[in-house]
Amino acid sequence: MIRIIGFDADDTLWRNEDIFEHAHARYRALLARYHPAAEVDRVLFATEMRNLGLYGYGVKGFTLSCVETAVELSQGRITGREIAEIIATGREMLSHPVELLAGVAEVVPQLARDYRLLLITKGDLQHQERKIAASGLAGHFHAVEIVSEKDGPAYDRIRQRHALSWAEFAMVGNSLKSDILPVLRLGGAGVHVPYHLTWQHEHVEEVPLDQPRFRRVERLADLPAVVAGL
Amino acid sequence: MIRIIGFDADDTLWRNEDIFEHAHARYRALLARYHPAAEVDRVLFATEMRNLGLYGYGVKGFTLSCVETAVELSQGRITGREIAEIIATGREMLSHPVELLAGVAEVVPQLARDYRLLLITKGDLQHQERKIAASGLAGHFHAVEIVSEKDGPAYDRIRQRHALSWAEFAMVGNSLKSDILPVLRLGGAGVHVPYHLTWQHEHVEEVPLDQPRFRRVERLADLPAVVAGL
Repeated sequence: MIRIIGFDADDTLWRNEDIFEHAHARYRALLARYHPAAEVDRVLFATEMRNLGLYGYGVKGFTLSCVETAVELSQGRITGREIAEIIATGREMLSHPVELLAGVAEVVPQLARDYRLLLITKGDLQHQERKIAASGLAGHFHAVEIVSEKDGPAYDRIRQRHALSWAEFAMVGNSLKSDILPVLRLGGAGVHVPYHLTWQHEHVEEVPLDQPRFRRVERLADLPAVVAGL
Repeated sequence: MIRIIGFDADDTLWRNEDIFEHAHARYRALLARYHPAAEVDRVLFATEMRNLGLYGYGVKGFTLSCVETAVELSQGRITGREIAEIIATGREMLSHPVELLAGVAEVVPQLARDYRLLLITKGDLQHQERKIAASGLAGHFHAVEIVSEKDGPAYDRIRQRHALSWAEFAMVGNSLKSDILPVLRLGGAGVHVPYHLTWQHEHVEEVPLDQPRFRRVERLADLPAVVAGL
Protein backbone atom coordinates (compact mmCIF):
# COMPACT_ATOMS: atom_id res chain seq x y z
CA MET A 1 0.00 0.00 0.00
CA ILE A 2 1.75 3.14 -1.26
CA ARG A 3 1.65 6.20 1.03
CA ILE A 4 4.58 8.26 -0.26
CA ILE A 5 5.41 9.05 -3.88
CA GLY A 6 8.77 10.39 -4.99
CA PHE A 7 8.73 12.37 -8.23
CA ASP A 8 11.70 13.00 -10.45
CA ALA A 9 11.60 16.51 -11.94
CA ASP A 10 13.53 16.95 -15.23
CA ASP A 11 11.68 15.23 -18.10
CA THR A 12 9.13 13.81 -15.66
CA LEU A 13 7.38 17.01 -14.52
CA TRP A 14 8.86 19.48 -16.99
CA ARG A 15 10.88 19.57 -20.22
CA ASN A 16 14.65 19.41 -19.83
CA GLU A 17 16.38 17.21 -22.39
CA ASP A 18 14.82 19.23 -25.24
CA ILE A 19 16.69 22.26 -23.92
CA PHE A 20 19.95 20.33 -23.96
CA GLU A 21 19.18 19.00 -27.48
CA HIS A 22 18.67 22.55 -28.71
CA ALA A 23 21.97 23.60 -27.09
CA HIS A 24 23.73 20.66 -28.76
CA ALA A 25 22.38 21.72 -32.16
CA ARG A 26 23.71 25.26 -31.68
CA TYR A 27 27.03 23.88 -30.53
CA ARG A 28 27.38 21.62 -33.58
CA ALA A 29 26.62 24.58 -35.85
CA LEU A 30 29.19 26.72 -34.04
CA LEU A 31 31.92 24.11 -34.45
CA ALA A 32 30.89 22.96 -37.94
CA ARG A 33 33.85 24.74 -39.53
CA TYR A 34 36.23 22.70 -37.37
CA HIS A 35 34.66 19.22 -37.26
CA PRO A 36 31.62 17.21 -38.44
CA ALA A 37 28.67 16.98 -36.04
CA ALA A 38 29.25 13.36 -35.03
CA GLU A 39 32.83 14.12 -33.97
CA VAL A 40 31.70 17.21 -32.02
CA ASP A 41 29.09 15.11 -30.20
CA ARG A 42 31.55 12.33 -29.46
CA VAL A 43 34.27 14.56 -28.02
CA LEU A 44 31.82 16.70 -26.03
CA PHE A 45 30.24 13.63 -24.42
CA ALA A 46 33.70 12.25 -23.56
CA THR A 47 34.60 15.59 -21.95
CA GLU A 48 31.34 15.64 -19.99
CA MET A 49 31.92 12.12 -18.67
CA ARG A 50 35.52 12.93 -17.72
CA ASN A 51 34.35 16.05 -15.86
CA LEU A 52 31.28 14.52 -14.17
CA GLY A 53 33.06 13.72 -10.92
CA LEU A 54 34.41 17.27 -10.73
CA TYR A 55 31.43 19.27 -12.04
CA GLY A 56 28.43 17.06 -11.24
CA TYR A 57 25.21 17.33 -13.24
CA GLY A 58 23.64 20.48 -14.58
CA VAL A 59 23.94 23.33 -17.04
CA LYS A 60 27.01 25.04 -15.54
CA GLY A 61 29.18 21.93 -15.81
CA PHE A 62 27.80 21.28 -19.31
CA THR A 63 28.71 24.82 -20.37
CA LEU A 64 32.24 24.50 -18.97
CA SER A 65 32.66 21.20 -20.83
CA CYS A 66 31.42 22.91 -24.03
CA VAL A 67 34.04 25.65 -23.64
CA GLU A 68 36.81 23.14 -22.94
CA THR A 69 35.82 20.97 -25.92
CA ALA A 70 35.61 23.99 -28.23
CA VAL A 71 39.22 24.94 -27.45
CA GLU A 72 40.29 21.33 -27.97
CA LEU A 73 38.39 20.73 -31.23
CA SER A 74 39.53 24.04 -32.72
CA GLN A 75 43.12 23.44 -31.57
CA GLY A 76 42.97 26.77 -29.81
CA ARG A 77 41.64 28.69 -32.83
CA ILE A 78 38.18 29.25 -31.28
CA THR A 79 37.41 32.97 -31.16
CA GLY A 80 36.25 35.15 -28.30
CA ARG A 81 32.96 35.72 -30.12
CA GLU A 82 32.39 31.95 -30.38
CA ILE A 83 33.21 31.44 -26.69
CA ALA A 84 30.74 34.21 -25.85
CA GLU A 85 28.08 32.36 -27.83
CA ILE A 86 28.66 29.18 -25.78
CA ILE A 87 28.36 31.17 -22.55
CA ALA A 88 25.18 32.82 -23.87
CA THR A 89 23.68 29.41 -24.68
CA GLY A 90 24.34 28.29 -21.10
CA ARG A 91 22.66 31.42 -19.75
CA GLU A 92 19.61 30.82 -21.93
CA MET A 93 19.39 27.22 -20.69
CA LEU A 94 19.48 28.43 -17.08
CA SER A 95 16.81 31.07 -17.64
CA HIS A 96 14.60 28.95 -19.90
CA PRO A 97 10.93 29.00 -18.78
CA VAL A 98 9.68 25.88 -17.02
CA GLU A 99 7.26 23.99 -19.31
CA LEU A 100 5.19 21.36 -17.51
CA LEU A 101 4.65 18.09 -19.35
CA ALA A 102 1.18 16.85 -20.31
CA GLY A 103 -0.98 15.85 -17.35
CA VAL A 104 1.36 17.18 -14.64
CA ALA A 105 -0.78 20.18 -13.68
CA GLU A 106 -3.74 17.86 -13.05
CA VAL A 107 -2.13 14.69 -11.68
CA VAL A 108 0.24 16.22 -9.11
CA PRO A 109 -2.46 18.15 -7.18
CA GLN A 110 -4.75 15.10 -7.39
CA LEU A 111 -2.12 12.74 -5.92
CA ALA A 112 -1.15 15.31 -3.27
CA ARG A 113 -4.60 14.86 -1.70
CA ASP A 114 -4.08 11.14 -1.08
CA TYR A 115 -0.30 10.72 -0.80
CA ARG A 116 2.69 12.48 0.67
CA LEU A 117 4.72 13.70 -2.31
CA LEU A 118 8.50 14.18 -2.38
CA LEU A 119 10.36 15.89 -5.20
CA ILE A 120 13.68 14.06 -5.72
CA THR A 121 16.01 15.52 -8.28
CA LYS A 122 19.70 15.68 -9.04
CA GLY A 123 21.82 18.44 -10.46
CA ASP A 124 22.54 22.04 -9.76
CA LEU A 125 21.06 23.21 -6.42
CA GLN A 126 20.34 26.80 -7.44
CA HIS A 127 18.90 25.93 -10.86
CA GLN A 128 16.69 23.13 -9.56
CA GLU A 129 15.34 25.37 -6.79
CA ARG A 130 14.48 28.08 -9.30
CA LYS A 131 12.72 25.59 -11.57
CA ILE A 132 10.70 24.20 -8.66
CA ALA A 133 9.67 27.72 -7.65
CA ALA A 134 8.77 28.63 -11.24
CA SER A 135 6.79 25.40 -11.79
CA GLY A 136 4.01 26.46 -9.42
CA LEU A 137 4.03 22.90 -8.01
CA ALA A 138 6.11 23.46 -4.86
CA GLY A 139 3.07 23.66 -2.58
CA HIS A 140 2.03 20.11 -3.46
CA PHE A 141 5.29 18.59 -2.26
CA HIS A 142 5.95 17.76 1.37
CA ALA A 143 9.70 18.14 0.79
CA VAL A 144 12.24 18.69 -1.95
CA GLU A 145 15.43 16.63 -2.03
CA ILE A 146 18.16 17.81 -4.38
CA VAL A 147 20.98 15.27 -4.45
CA SER A 148 24.27 15.06 -6.34
CA GLU A 149 23.63 11.49 -7.55
CA LYS A 150 20.45 9.37 -7.55
CA ASP A 151 21.86 6.07 -6.38
CA GLY A 152 21.08 3.56 -3.62
CA PRO A 153 22.86 5.47 -0.82
CA ALA A 154 21.10 8.72 -1.78
CA TYR A 155 17.66 7.07 -1.73
CA ASP A 156 18.49 5.41 1.57
CA ARG A 157 19.41 8.80 3.12
CA ILE A 158 16.03 10.11 1.94
CA ARG A 159 14.30 7.07 3.46
CA GLN A 160 15.97 7.72 6.82
CA ARG A 161 15.35 11.45 6.75
CA HIS A 162 11.62 10.98 6.14
CA ALA A 163 11.29 7.85 8.28
CA LEU A 164 9.59 5.98 5.45
CA SER A 165 9.55 2.27 4.63
CA TRP A 166 10.26 0.89 1.14
CA ALA A 167 6.94 -0.97 1.20
CA GLU A 168 5.01 2.31 1.24
CA PHE A 169 7.23 4.18 -1.27
CA ALA A 170 6.92 4.51 -5.05
CA MET A 171 9.31 6.51 -7.24
CA VAL A 172 8.04 8.02 -10.49
CA GLY A 173 10.42 9.13 -13.22
CA ASN A 174 11.66 8.96 -16.78
CA SER A 175 15.10 7.50 -16.07
CA LEU A 176 15.33 3.77 -15.43
CA LYS A 177 18.92 4.26 -14.29
CA SER A 178 18.35 7.07 -11.79
CA ASP A 179 14.69 6.86 -10.81
CA ILE A 180 13.61 3.23 -11.06
CA LEU A 181 16.38 0.61 -10.76
CA PRO A 182 17.99 1.87 -7.49
CA VAL A 183 14.57 2.08 -5.80
CA LEU A 184 13.49 -1.39 -7.00
CA ARG A 185 16.79 -2.82 -5.69
CA LEU A 186 16.06 -1.37 -2.26
CA GLY A 187 12.55 -2.82 -2.21
CA GLY A 188 10.52 0.21 -3.24
CA ALA A 189 8.16 0.46 -6.19
CA GLY A 190 9.08 2.19 -9.44
CA VAL A 191 6.80 3.70 -12.06
CA HIS A 192 8.57 4.52 -15.30
CA VAL A 193 7.17 7.37 -17.38
CA PRO A 194 9.24 7.28 -20.59
CA TYR A 195 10.26 10.55 -22.21
CA HIS A 196 10.92 10.82 -25.94
CA LEU A 197 14.54 11.85 -25.32
CA THR A 198 17.05 10.16 -22.99
CA TRP A 199 20.51 11.57 -22.34
CA GLN A 200 23.14 9.03 -23.40
CA HIS A 201 24.51 8.90 -19.84
CA GLU A 202 21.10 7.81 -18.48
CA HIS A 203 20.62 5.07 -21.05
CA VAL A 204 20.34 1.49 -19.74
CA GLU A 205 19.53 -1.71 -21.59
CA GLU A 206 17.94 -3.37 -18.59
CA VAL A 207 14.15 -2.99 -18.32
CA PRO A 208 12.99 -4.64 -15.09
CA LEU A 209 9.79 -6.09 -16.55
CA ASP A 210 10.00 -9.15 -14.28
CA GLN A 211 10.03 -7.08 -11.08
CA PRO A 212 6.67 -7.28 -9.27
CA ARG A 213 6.90 -3.65 -8.09
CA PHE A 214 7.77 -2.20 -11.52
CA ARG A 215 5.17 -0.40 -13.61
CA ARG A 216 5.29 1.71 -16.74
CA VAL A 217 2.76 4.34 -17.80
CA GLU A 218 2.72 6.03 -21.19
CA ARG A 219 0.64 8.98 -20.00
CA LEU A 220 0.90 10.64 -16.59
CA ALA A 221 -2.90 10.67 -16.42
CA ASP A 222 -2.71 6.90 -15.83
CA LEU A 223 -0.47 7.30 -12.78
CA PRO A 224 -3.14 7.51 -10.01
CA ALA A 225 -4.74 4.22 -11.04
CA VAL A 226 -1.37 2.49 -11.37
CA VAL A 227 -0.17 3.70 -7.95
CA ALA A 228 -3.47 2.66 -6.35
CA GLY A 229 -2.88 -0.86 -7.70
CA LEU A 230 0.63 -1.23 -6.31
CA MET B 1 21.37 26.61 27.05
CA ILE B 2 22.83 25.59 23.67
CA ARG B 3 22.16 22.03 22.48
CA ILE B 4 22.71 22.30 18.72
CA ILE B 5 25.60 24.02 16.95
CA GLY B 6 25.54 24.91 13.28
CA PHE B 7 28.94 25.20 11.61
CA ASP B 8 29.69 27.08 8.45
CA ALA B 9 32.27 25.24 6.32
CA ASP B 10 34.27 27.44 3.90
CA ASP B 11 36.77 29.62 5.82
CA THR B 12 35.36 28.37 9.14
CA LEU B 13 36.41 24.69 9.01
CA TRP B 14 38.72 24.78 5.99
CA ARG B 15 40.50 27.25 3.70
CA ASN B 16 38.48 28.57 0.79
CA GLU B 17 38.97 32.27 0.13
CA ASP B 18 42.74 31.74 -0.24
CA ILE B 19 41.99 29.45 -3.18
CA PHE B 20 39.86 32.17 -4.78
CA GLU B 21 42.57 34.78 -4.08
CA HIS B 22 45.12 32.61 -5.82
CA ALA B 23 42.77 32.19 -8.80
CA HIS B 24 42.25 35.97 -8.93
CA ALA B 25 46.02 36.51 -9.04
CA ARG B 26 46.38 34.11 -11.98
CA TYR B 27 43.45 35.78 -13.73
CA ARG B 28 44.93 39.27 -13.34
CA ALA B 29 48.24 38.01 -14.75
CA LEU B 30 46.44 36.39 -17.69
CA LEU B 31 44.59 39.59 -18.58
CA ALA B 32 47.46 41.97 -17.74
CA ARG B 33 48.14 42.63 -21.43
CA TYR B 34 44.56 43.89 -21.83
CA HIS B 35 43.83 45.82 -18.62
CA PRO B 36 45.37 46.82 -15.27
CA ALA B 37 44.62 44.55 -12.30
CA ALA B 38 42.17 46.92 -10.60
CA GLU B 39 40.03 47.14 -13.74
CA VAL B 40 40.09 43.34 -14.15
CA ASP B 41 38.96 42.92 -10.53
CA ARG B 42 36.22 45.53 -10.89
CA VAL B 43 34.70 44.09 -14.07
CA LEU B 44 34.97 40.48 -12.86
CA PHE B 45 33.19 41.31 -9.59
CA ALA B 46 30.45 43.16 -11.50
CA THR B 47 30.01 40.12 -13.78
CA GLU B 48 29.86 37.77 -10.78
CA MET B 49 27.20 39.88 -9.08
CA ARG B 50 25.14 40.13 -12.29
CA ASN B 51 25.31 36.33 -12.68
CA LEU B 52 24.71 35.40 -9.04
CA GLY B 53 20.97 34.88 -9.45
CA LEU B 54 21.57 32.62 -12.46
CA TYR B 55 24.70 30.73 -11.36
CA GLY B 56 24.53 30.79 -7.56
CA TYR B 57 27.69 30.49 -5.45
CA GLY B 58 30.64 28.29 -6.16
CA VAL B 59 33.60 27.61 -8.41
CA LYS B 60 31.67 26.68 -11.57
CA GLY B 61 29.78 29.96 -11.68
CA PHE B 62 32.99 31.86 -10.84
CA THR B 63 34.79 30.14 -13.74
CA LEU B 64 31.97 30.94 -16.17
CA SER B 65 32.07 34.58 -15.04
CA CYS B 66 35.86 34.60 -15.57
CA VAL B 67 35.43 33.33 -19.15
CA GLU B 68 32.69 35.87 -19.89
CA THR B 69 34.74 38.74 -18.44
CA ALA B 70 37.86 37.67 -20.36
CA VAL B 71 35.99 37.90 -23.67
CA GLU B 72 34.59 41.29 -22.66
CA LEU B 73 37.85 42.80 -21.38
CA SER B 74 39.82 41.59 -24.41
CA GLN B 75 37.09 42.75 -26.80
CA GLY B 76 36.98 39.23 -28.19
CA ARG B 77 40.75 38.96 -28.71
CA ILE B 78 41.22 36.41 -25.91
CA THR B 79 42.84 33.26 -27.30
CA GLY B 80 41.84 29.63 -27.01
CA ARG B 81 44.97 28.96 -24.98
CA GLU B 82 44.02 31.71 -22.49
CA ILE B 83 40.46 30.37 -22.21
CA ALA B 84 41.90 26.90 -21.55
CA GLU B 85 43.99 28.36 -18.73
CA ILE B 86 40.86 29.83 -17.09
CA ILE B 87 39.12 26.45 -17.34
CA ALA B 88 42.21 24.75 -15.89
CA THR B 89 42.25 27.17 -12.94
CA GLY B 90 38.61 26.29 -12.21
CA ARG B 91 39.41 22.59 -12.31
CA GLU B 92 42.31 23.08 -9.90
CA MET B 93 40.05 24.99 -7.51
CA LEU B 94 37.52 22.15 -7.59
CA SER B 95 40.15 19.49 -6.95
CA HIS B 96 42.16 21.47 -4.40
CA PRO B 97 42.88 19.46 -1.23
CA VAL B 98 40.81 20.34 1.82
CA GLU B 99 43.01 22.09 4.40
CA LEU B 100 41.46 22.26 7.87
CA LEU B 101 41.94 25.52 9.76
CA ALA B 102 43.79 25.66 13.08
CA GLY B 103 41.95 23.97 15.95
CA VAL B 104 39.23 22.37 13.80
CA ALA B 105 40.53 18.80 14.07
CA GLU B 106 40.43 19.07 17.89
CA VAL B 107 37.39 21.28 18.55
CA VAL B 108 34.85 19.61 16.24
CA PRO B 109 35.20 16.10 17.76
CA GLN B 110 35.22 17.63 21.26
CA LEU B 111 31.99 19.56 20.67
CA ALA B 112 30.37 16.55 18.97
CA ARG B 113 30.43 14.73 22.31
CA ASP B 114 28.27 17.35 24.05
CA TYR B 115 26.23 18.93 21.25
CA ARG B 116 24.39 17.94 18.12
CA LEU B 117 26.39 19.44 15.24
CA LEU B 118 24.98 20.54 11.88
CA LEU B 119 27.10 21.54 8.92
CA ILE B 120 25.37 24.42 7.13
CA THR B 121 26.98 25.64 3.95
CA LYS B 122 26.03 27.32 0.71
CA GLY B 123 27.31 26.84 -2.79
CA ASP B 124 27.78 24.04 -5.21
CA LEU B 125 26.15 20.78 -4.04
CA GLN B 126 28.66 18.39 -5.62
CA HIS B 127 31.75 20.38 -4.60
CA GLN B 128 30.61 20.91 -1.01
CA GLU B 129 29.78 17.21 -0.64
CA ARG B 130 33.24 16.25 -1.89
CA LYS B 131 34.93 18.69 0.50
CA ILE B 132 32.92 17.36 3.44
CA ALA B 133 33.88 13.79 2.53
CA ALA B 134 37.55 14.77 2.11
CA SER B 135 37.63 16.71 5.40
CA GLY B 136 37.33 13.59 7.52
CA LEU B 137 34.83 15.46 9.70
CA ALA B 138 31.56 14.10 8.28
CA GLY B 139 31.12 11.55 11.06
CA HIS B 140 30.94 14.29 13.71
CA PHE B 141 27.95 15.99 12.10
CA HIS B 142 24.40 14.85 12.69
CA ALA B 143 23.36 16.31 9.32
CA VAL B 144 24.69 18.36 6.44
CA GLU B 145 22.57 21.14 4.96
CA ILE B 146 23.73 22.59 1.65
CA VAL B 147 21.59 25.60 0.74
CA SER B 148 21.60 28.01 -2.18
CA GLU B 149 21.51 31.12 0.08
CA LYS B 150 22.10 31.48 3.85
CA ASP B 151 19.28 33.83 4.72
CA GLY B 152 16.41 33.88 7.22
CA PRO B 153 14.07 31.59 5.25
CA ALA B 154 16.87 29.04 4.71
CA TYR B 155 17.71 28.95 8.44
CA ASP B 156 14.04 28.65 9.28
CA ARG B 157 13.65 25.64 6.97
CA ILE B 158 16.59 24.02 8.78
CA ARG B 159 14.95 24.80 12.14
CA GLN B 160 11.74 23.09 11.04
CA ARG B 161 13.49 20.11 9.47
CA HIS B 162 15.44 19.40 12.66
CA ALA B 163 12.67 20.43 15.06
CA LEU B 164 15.02 22.76 16.94
CA SER B 165 14.29 25.95 18.86
CA TRP B 166 16.27 29.16 18.40
CA ALA B 167 16.99 29.26 22.14
CA GLU B 168 19.06 26.08 21.91
CA PHE B 169 20.82 26.91 18.63
CA ALA B 170 24.17 28.63 17.99
CA MET B 171 25.64 29.24 14.55
CA VAL B 172 29.42 29.43 14.16
CA GLY B 173 31.02 31.01 11.10
CA ASN B 174 33.33 33.56 9.52
CA SER B 175 30.67 35.54 7.66
CA LEU B 176 28.64 38.05 9.64
CA LYS B 177 26.33 38.42 6.64
CA SER B 178 25.60 34.73 6.03
CA ASP B 179 26.32 32.96 9.32
CA ILE B 180 25.63 35.41 12.13
CA LEU B 181 23.19 38.22 11.36
CA PRO B 182 20.30 36.10 9.96
CA VAL B 183 20.50 33.73 12.94
CA LEU B 184 20.62 36.56 15.51
CA ARG B 185 17.57 38.16 13.85
CA LEU B 186 15.64 34.91 14.28
CA GLY B 187 16.58 34.63 17.96
CA GLY B 188 19.48 32.18 17.74
CA ALA B 189 23.01 32.74 19.01
CA GLY B 190 25.91 33.58 16.71
CA VAL B 191 29.62 33.05 17.25
CA HIS B 192 31.79 34.90 14.77
CA VAL B 193 35.18 33.37 13.95
CA PRO B 194 36.84 35.99 11.72
CA TYR B 195 38.96 34.83 8.81
CA HIS B 196 41.81 36.92 7.44
CA LEU B 197 40.11 37.18 4.03
CA THR B 198 36.49 38.11 3.34
CA TRP B 199 34.96 38.01 -0.14
CA GLN B 200 33.71 41.46 -1.09
CA HIS B 201 30.15 40.12 -1.48
CA GLU B 202 30.12 38.91 2.15
CA HIS B 203 31.38 42.17 3.58
CA VAL B 204 29.08 44.02 6.01
CA GLU B 205 29.72 47.12 8.08
CA GLU B 206 27.35 46.11 10.83
CA VAL B 207 28.94 44.25 13.77
CA PRO B 208 26.19 43.25 16.21
CA LEU B 209 28.21 43.93 19.36
CA ASP B 210 25.11 45.04 21.27
CA GLN B 211 23.30 41.74 20.71
CA PRO B 212 23.23 39.64 23.89
CA ARG B 213 23.53 36.38 21.94
CA PHE B 214 26.51 37.51 19.82
CA ARG B 215 30.05 36.34 20.55
CA ARG B 216 33.35 36.54 18.72
CA VAL B 217 36.32 34.22 19.13
CA GLU B 218 39.72 34.81 17.61
CA ARG B 219 40.77 31.16 17.90
CA LEU B 220 38.52 28.15 17.40
CA ALA B 221 40.07 26.61 20.53
CA ASP B 222 38.07 29.15 22.54
CA LEU B 223 34.76 28.01 21.07
CA PRO B 224 33.76 25.32 23.62
CA ALA B 225 34.06 27.74 26.55
CA VAL B 226 32.18 30.47 24.69
CA VAL B 227 29.33 28.15 23.67
CA ALA B 228 29.07 26.80 27.22
CA GLY B 229 28.59 30.38 28.44
CA LEU B 230 25.78 31.21 26.03
